[in-house]
Amino acid sequence: VSVTAVPGFDAAGVACGIKPNGDPDLALLATHDRRPVAAAGVFTTNLATAAPVQISRAHLRDGHAAAVIVNSGNANAATGEPGRANARTMCERTGAAIGCATTDVLVCSTGLIGIPLPIDVIAAGIPKAATGLAASPAAGDAAATAMLTTDTVTKQATAVAETTDGTRYTVGGMAKGAAMLAPAMATMLAVLTTDAAATPAALHDALDRAVRETFNALIVDGCTSTNDTVLVLANGSATNPTIDTTGPGFHALVETLSEVCDTLAHAMATDAEGATKLARIVVRGARSGDDARRAARAVAASQLVQCSLYGADPYWGRILSELGASGAHLDPERVDIAYNGITVARAGVAAPHDEDALEQAMGERDIEIACDLHDGMGHAQVRFTDLTHAYIDENRGTS
Amino acid sequence: VSVTAVPGFDAAGVACGIKPNGDPDLALLATHDRRPVAAAGVFTTNLATAAPVQISRAHLRDGHAAAVIVNSGNANAATGEPGRANARTMCERTGAAIGCATTDVLVCSTGLIGIPLPIDVIAAGIPKAATGLAASPAAGDAAATAMLTTDTVTKQATAVAETTDGTRYTVGGMAKGAAMLAPAMATMLAVLTTDAAATPAALHDALDRAVRETFNALIVDGCTSTNDTVLVLANGSATNPTIDTTGPGFHALVETLSEVCDTLAHAMATDAEGATKLARIVVRGARSGDDARRAARAVAASQLVQCSLYGADPYWGRILSELGASGAHLDPERVDIAYNGITVARAGVAAPHDEDALEQAMGERDIEIACDLHDGMGHAQVRFTDLTHAYIDENRGTS
Repeated sequence: VSVTAVPGFDAAGVACGIKPNGDPDLALLATHDRRPVAAAGVFTTNLATAAPVQISRAHLRDGHAAAVIVNSGNANAATGEPGRANARTMCERTGAAIGCATTDVLVCSTGLIGIPLPIDVIAAGIPKAATGLAASPAAGDAAATAMLTTDTVTKQATAVAETTDGTRYTVGGMAKGAAMLAPAMATMLAVLTTDAAATPAALHDALDRAVRETFNALIVDGCTSTNDTVLVLANGSATNPTIDTTGPGFHALVETLSEVCDTLAHAMATDAEGATKLARIVVRGARSGDDARRAARAVAASQLVQCSLYGADPYWGRILSELGASGAHLDPERVDIAYNGITVARAGVAAPHDEDALEQAMGERDIEIACDLHDGMGHAQVRFTDLTHAYIDENRGTS
Repeated sequence: VSVTAVPGFDAAGVACGIKPNGDPDLALLATHDRRPVAAAGVFTTNLATAAPVQISRAHLRDGHAAAVIVNSGNANAATGEPGRANARTMCERTGAAIGCATTDVLVCSTGLIGIPLPIDVIAAGIPKAATGLAASPAAGDAAATAMLTTDTVTKQATAVAETTDGTRYTVGGMAKGAAMLAPAMATMLAVLTTDAAATPAALHDALDRAVRETFNALIVDGCTSTNDTVLVLANGSATNPTIDTTGPGFHALVETLSEVCDTLAHAMATDAEGATKLARIVVRGARSGDDARRAARAVAASQLVQCSLYGADPYWGRILSELGASGAHLDPERVDIAYNGITVARAGVAAPHDEDALEQAMGERDIEIACDLHDGMGHAQVRFTDLTHAYIDENRGTS
C-alpha cells in the first residue's frame, strides 16, 4: 500500500539534516524510466503561496512530470525571491541526479513558515535520495516517512480500478498532515501515482473532483495552509484506452482517486493533533449543494461545536446556531438534528429522546451529526475533530 | 455610569427564579413617564433568530418604544411558536405592569438555547421589577446585574455630547457577554439610553454605524449568537434640535454612541471567558475598507493565531497565512507585520529585530498586531482574545 505499489514508480526517503533530530526529511518519487508522464496538481487557495507551490504550478503547465521532491522541516513559505530560487534549485538538482529536465520535477515543502530553506543540506541530500530510489514497498514507506512533520504515523493507500475494456489500473498515494492539522508545522501534502493512461486534462479534472469531497471536506482548525498540495503522476503503463474528460473511463478515474484520497483524509483525521473525537457532519435537504457545503463547513469549523464534542455534550442549540449563521439558506423551524442516529431536535425545537442512549452515543469516539434542512435536495458532509487541551498545547508554541 | 445616568429613564433588576441559584435574572428599563420615545435596534444576522429578537423587531417597526424587558438564564431560542408567544407575553405583562402598550415594549433573552422559557416565573417577576423601577445609580446597577450570565462583572458606560447649538446630551449603556463570548449561555446584549432628540431613522443609522466598529469588531470565538441585540431609546429631554440623518448633529450622535459601545465592547473582551490576552489586529494599507475588515477578521478568528497568543509565540507565519487565506486582496510580498510595534516581517519575509524586546512584548497582556498590506488606503481593526485551556473548560459542557 504505497506509491510504489503502482508499476513503474520508484521512491526513496532519507534524512538530509533539515530536522535537527536527524529524522528523515527528504522524499523523492520518480518514474522508473525517469521520463515525464501525465501529471496534475491541486494547490492551496491561500494567496500567500509558498515558493514550492509557485514553482510546481509553473512546472505543471505542460501537464507532465517525471519526479516529485518533498522536504519536511521547513515550509519555504514567506521566503520571497530567494525562496523561489531555492525551490528551483531543488528541482534542478533532482533533475541532474536522476536524469530529467528541471521543469519535469515538482517540489513540495512542509514545516515552519518564514525561515530560509537550508538549501545546502538539501542539495547534498538529493543525490543520496536518488541513489536510494527503488520500487520496493520499503522504499515507498521511506518516502511516506520522510514527508511527515508532527504526524505520528505514515499515511498510505492504494485502490484498483477496471476500465470498460477490462484493463485494470492501480492508484497509490502517500500523505502527511491535514489542512493545518499540524499547524506549527503547517500543511497537508499528498502525492499519488497511477499506471492508468489519461490525458493531463482528465487527470487534473478527476483529481480536482476527488480532492473536493475528501481532503477539502476535512476540517481540523479551519485554517488553509500556504503549502497545501496534492499531486498525481499517471504513467499509462496499464495500457488502458487513454482516459479523457468526456470518455466512459473518466468517472472510474474520479472514483478511484477519490477512494485513495478518502483513505488518506481519514488517516489524517485519525492522527489529528490532540483530537479525542472523529466527527462527521452530514447536511441533507439543503436548497443546493453549495448551501449544504456552507452549512456543513460552518458546523465543522465552530470552536463551540468542537468544544462540545470534547465534553461529549449533545448541546444541539450550538449546531442550530451555527447552521443559522452559516450563510446557507434555511428555515430554522424545519431543521432536524441527530447525534449518532438519535434525534434531539425536530422542526427546530427540542425532541424527546432516550437520555441514556444519547449519553452513551456521545461517549463514542466516532460521532455523526446529521442535519436535515427539509429545504431541497442538496447534501454534503465534512469530517472534523474536537478542540482539546492537547490541541492548544501542540499549537501554542512553535519551539 | 449607567442607563439611569440619563435623565428620564428608570431601571430595575430582580431575581424571578429562572436561574436555579437565585441570582438576579430579570432586568427592566422604562421611560420615566412610561411614554414611547424614539428607539432603534441592531440584531443578530443569524437566521435562527431567537423569539425575543423576532418580537422586538416587530415592535420596533414604528421606531418607538417605552420599555425593555430582559431575562437571563434562558435564551428562548429554538423554541418555535410557543417561544414567540412567551416573548409576546413578556411584553404584554410588562406593558400592563408599567402602563404602556404591549407593542411599545422590547424584549431580550440570554441563556441556553432550545429550552422552553419558564414564562410563569417571569410573569410573576415582572410586577416586582416594575415596582422597583427607579432612576438611581443603584437601580441602574441592579438592571445591569440582572442581564449577566457567565460574566464576572457588570458592563456599563456613559458619554456626553454637545450639539451645535450648545445643548448637551448623555448616552448611557449596559451590556452583557460578547458575541458568543460566554457561549454556553450565548449572546451579547446591550441596552442604551439617551436624552438626545433624534428621529428614529437617525437613531437607527447612528446605532448601526456605532455597532459596526465596536461590538461587530470584537471576536472571541467567531460565533454569531441567535440572540445578539443592541437597543437604544432616545427620549429627547435634552431638547436639542432633533437630529436627523442629514443634519449637522448626526456625526456627533454616531461618535457618542460609538464611545459608549466601545467602552462596553472593551469591557466584554476584558471579561472574556478564560482569556489571558487582550489582542487587537490592525490592518492598514488594504485595497478597500472591506478588504481590511476581511483580513482583520480572519486573523482574529484564527484558532492558530489565538493559540500562538496564549503561548506568547510571535510566529508571524500564521498571521501571513491567515491574511493570505482571508479572501482579501493582497500581495503577500508587500506585507509588513509588527507585534506591539516591533516589526517581525517586512515585504513578506522575516525582518531582523531585537529578540529580547520581542519576547518581553509578547509577555504583555495587551498585544497589538499591526499589518500593513501596502496596497491602498483601507484600514480596519478587530479586538480578540487568546484560546486557552480555560476557554475549553468553560465551553465543553453546558451543565
